[in-house]
Amino acid sequence: MPDTHARRRAALRSHLRERDLDALLVVDLLNIRYLTGFTGSNAGLLVHAQDDERTVFCTDGRYLTQSARQVPDLRRIIERPCPPALVAHAAAEGFGRTGYESHRVTVDELDTLRAAGEVELARASGLVEQLRVVKDDTEVEALRMACAAADRALADLIEHGGLRPGRTEREVARELENRMLDHGAAGPSFESIVATGANSAVPHHRPTDAVLQSGDLVKLDFGALVDGYHSDMTRTFVLGHVADWQRELYDLVATAQAAGRAALRPGVEVRAVDAAARGVVEDAGRGEDFLHGLGHGVGLEIHEAPALAKTGEGRLSAGMAVTVEPGVYLSGRGGVRIEDTLVVRDGDPELLTLTTKQLVVV
Amino acid sequence: MPDTHARRRAALRSHLRERDLDALLVVDLLNIRYLTGFTGSNAGLLVHAQDDERTVFCTDGRYLTQSARQVPDLRRIIERPCPPALVAHAAAEGFGRTGYESHRVTVDELDTLRAAGEVELARASGLVEQLRVVKDDTEVEALRMACAAADRALADLIEHGGLRPGRTEREVARELENRMLDHGAAGPSFESIVATGANSAVPHHRPTDAVLQSGDLVKLDFGALVDGYHSDMTRTFVLGHVADWQRELYDLVATAQAAGRAALRPGVEVRAVDAAARGVVEDAGRGEDFLHGLGHGVGLEIHEAPALAKTGEGRLSAGMAVTVEPGVYLSGRGGVRIEDTLVVRDGDPELLTLTTKQLVVV
Repeated sequence: MPDTHARRRAALRSHLRERDLDALLVVDLLNIRYLTGFTGSNAGLLVHAQDDERTVFCTDGRYLTQSARQVPDLRRIIERPCPPALVAHAAAEGFGRTGYESHRVTVDELDTLRAAGEVELARASGLVEQLRVVKDDTEVEALRMACAAADRALADLIEHGGLRPGRTEREVARELENRMLDHGAAGPSFESIVATGANSAVPHHRPTDAVLQSGDLVKLDFGALVDGYHSDMTRTFVLGHVADWQRELYDLVATAQAAGRAALRPGVEVRAVDAAARGVVEDAGRGEDFLHGLGHGVGLEIHEAPALAKTGEGRLSAGMAVTVEPGVYLSGRGGVRIEDTLVVRDGDPELLTLTTKQLVVV
Repeated sequence: MPDTHARRRAALRSHLRERDLDALLVVDLLNIRYLTGFTGSNAGLLVHAQDDERTVFCTDGRYLTQSARQVPDLRRIIERPCPPALVAHAAAEGFGRTGYESHRVTVDELDTLRAAGEVELARASGLVEQLRVVKDDTEVEALRMACAAADRALADLIEHGGLRPGRTEREVARELENRMLDHGAAGPSFESIVATGANSAVPHHRPTDAVLQSGDLVKLDFGALVDGYHSDMTRTFVLGHVADWQRELYDLVATAQAAGRAALRPGVEVRAVDAAARGVVEDAGRGEDFLHGLGHGVGLEIHEAPALAKTGEGRLSAGMAVTVEPGVYLSGRGGVRIEDTLVVRDGDPELLTLTTKQLVVV
C-alpha cells in the first residue's frame, strides 16, 4: 500500500514545515512501519519536509529483499546502524534543521548522531504518534480483522466447552490463543488474562494453574494481532449458577460500560468519557473498587494515546480507536470487567468487538 | 531468591565505587529483574554504592502485592513514574554523584530526571549488562530448563510425525511452540523459524504456508522461555531421501559447528571463535555463503553480549552463555544451520541443547 504510506508521510510533512524542520529522523520502528510499511527489526527513516524525492529509508543487508518489496517507493540506504548513516546522508545533502525523536533517542545515541555529520539536530518528539492517534481506513480494517479473530476464538472456545469447571486458567488461555491463530491472528496481542474466582478481582492477573470451579466469575481479557494491529476485549462469565451479588456486580459494570460507550463522540474531553462510566460506579458506592482508567487508544501498540482516564488530556476526534473497559473488583471475592474496542465516529461510535455483553452463564 | 539478587547488587556496588558513584539509577526492566527478581512492567531501582540499606526499589500501585513478594529485601517507593521519584529521593537523602543508564534513558527523560531533584547525574552505561554476561548458577539452571523444554518439544514433534511432507511451515511452528508450552515454557523465546526447501536458504525466514515436500531441507530455529531466560537452538533435517549436495552441505556445517564449540574456552578472543568455525567453511570455498556471525550471548535477552563475530571484541570468560550457529545458504536451493546454546567452562564447554547433531532424515 505505497499510497497509504505516501499519504501518511505527506501529513507528517505539513507538521515538519510548521515547525521549521527540513526533515525528521524517525527511529521508532512502529513509526517507521506506519510511514513505510516496513516490518523488519532494524531501520531508520529520514522524511524530508518538501517531498518524497529527498526522503530516505535505511535498513541492513538482512532486509534487502524484504525492504525492496515493502518500501518500493523510497530511496534506500543499506547500512548498520541506520540513524547515524541517515544523519551522515543529511549532512552530505546539506539538509538544514533536522528533527529527531527525542522521546526515543537515548542520551548515548544522541552523541553518535552528533558525531555522524554536521547537521543541526532539533528535538521533535511524538510527531508521528500524533498522526497515529487518528486511524485511517487501512488501519481500521486491520483492527476490525483483529477484533473479529478474537470474537471468533471466544465463540469457538465456548461452543466447544472450553470454559468449564475443572480446567485451569492456563489451559483456557492457551486454547483461546490457539483459536485466535485459527482465525488468522499472527499471535495474541498481549499476554492473555484468564482469571477465575477470587483471581478475577485482580485487574491484571496472569493465568495460573488455578482450576475453574462452578459458581466462579471467570474474566477473559485478550486480543489478536493482525497486520501489526492489536485488538483488546474483556468478557466476564459465570460458571454454573449465578449468585445475586455476581449479577448485581455484572449489571453495574455493564451499565457503566454502556455509559462510557455512549459518551464516545468527537469533541468530547477524554476525561469526560472516563467520568461518564465512573459516575455510574461511584453512584452505586463502588468508586473505590474501580481500580484503573476507563480505556486507552489501541493500534500498532496495545496501549497508545489517548488515555481515557481521570487525568487524561485532550478531546476525542473521529477515527480514534479506543477501548472502553470499566471494572469493579471485590478483593477476595471476584471482579467483573467488560471491554470493547471501538472507533470514534461522527454520531455513534463503531463497535469492533462484537461478542455479546449480556451475562453469559456457561 | 533474595540472596542471589543481593549478591548481584553487591557485585554491582564494587563497580560503582570504582567509578566514584554514590549510586546508580537503573531503569532497564531486565536489569532491574536481574538485580531484584521483580518481573512487573514498571519499576526503577536506585542502588547505593555502600549498602542495601540505602538502596530503594520503586514500582506503581498495580504491583503492591507482587513487589512485596518478589522484592522483600529492599525499601520500596510506590510512585509513577519511578525514575524521577528515585531522583527526588536521592536529592532528599543527599546522595552525591549518581549514575544513570545513558544507553536507556532518552533525551526527553533526562530532562525529567534533571528537573526531579538536585543531584549530580553522571552517565553510566552498560554496568549491569557487564555483570549479566557471566551467568551465575541460578541463571544457568534457568537456561538449562529452557533448553530442555526446546529439546523435548522437538523430540515430541518428530516422534509424533509432526515433521512430514504436506504440512505447512506455519503448522510445524505452531505445533513446536505448543509442545514447548507442554514442557514448561512460558512461551517461545522468539518467533520460531521453520523454513523448508529453498526457504531454508533465507537465514531469518518466517513461517509461511509453504508446504514441506519430500527431498526438502527443513530448518528449525526456535527456543523456549523459562523464568525469563531464553534458549536458542537450530537443527536442519531432510525429508525422505538425502541428495548428495545436501549431505555435503550438512557435513560442512556440522564440522564448522564442532570447530566453533571446540574453540569455546575462557581467555579466547571472541573473534577467534568465529574464525575457528568460519575457517572450515572458507576452506571449503563456501565463505561467501556463511551470511552472519557465529553466535551471540543469551540470557534474559535472546541476543546479548558477547557477539561471536568477525568484528566482536573481548575474550570469553567461564560462565558466559553463548550460541554457536554457523550456517551455509545456497540461494534458491537450500541452507543448513546447526546451533547450540552452551556455557563456557574451564575445560570443555557445557552443552545445554542436547538434541543430536547427526543428520536426521525424517
